[in-house]
Amino acid sequence: MASIFSKIVNGEIPCYKVAENDEYLAFLDIFPLKKGHVLVIPKKEVDYIFDLDENTLSGLMLFAQKVAKAIDKTIPSERVGVAVIGLEVPHAHIHLVPLHGAHDIDFSRPKLKFTEEELTEIAALIAANFQA
Amino acid sequence: MASIFSKIVNGEIPCYKVAENDEYLAFLDIFPLKKGHVLVIPKKEVDYIFDLDENTLSGLMLFAQKVAKAIDKTIPSERVGVAVIGLEVPHAHIHLVPLHGAHDIDFSRPKLKFTEEELTEIAALIAANFQA
Repeated sequence: MASIFSKIVNGEIPCYKVAENDEYLAFLDIFPLKKGHVLVIPKKEVDYIFDLDENTLSGLMLFAQKVAKAIDKTIPSERVGVAVIGLEVPHAHIHLVPLHGAHDIDFSRPKLKFTEEELTEIAALIAANFQA
Repeated sequence: MASIFSKIVNGEIPCYKVAENDEYLAFLDIFPLKKGHVLVIPKKEVDYIFDLDENTLSGLMLFAQKVAKAIDKTIPSERVGVAVIGLEVPHAHIHLVPLHGAHDIDFSRPKLKFTEEELTEIAALIAANFQA
């Protein structure tokens, strides 16, 4: 069965898209730890990030770098942090989280809630700062 | 001033080395969240990981992949998680942490303590499973 992220890739489930190319997609985490929390995924469905082939993995990281730069331009923070957990959705994904402290990457913390309008605006602002 | 990690690279400060090549170094975090918690760094001293040039960043991720595979062979876990925070040491570093749950990546948790003998043994076991 296709992962929820493959369904997003295929357009079966909507997302708040931030950036996309042939191989990768970035969109807002709808259960964000911080404002501007983005997920970056390879379109290819592979569960464990370290099972990705080398080209896909290095390309994923370089795509994430461009997305992080767009987040940096958009959302005030000390820097953008990175987390890969991967115990819930079986499709490799990188969390990019604007950090104000090390505790901001702690997935046991309560998630923030934004309205659809807010999420649409955040995604559009980051997307406008994305340089392919 | 050289970062503490550059001092490790230069051999001025010892470390529990797991793997090394011309550009990258992996060694045990001495304040580990879990047994087998490894730091992977570029030898080049750059503070923010997303300021690394593309070659160094993609190479860092591919080196981290090899280290993660060695950790996977050595330390029982669900998988190896990834975190990049970077608010303490101004030298880009990737945390690789064997995960048993998403809460295992939470840097506000108390760190584990191992003896020098235990750290030496853990590093040697992971190093033995590392394939360049």
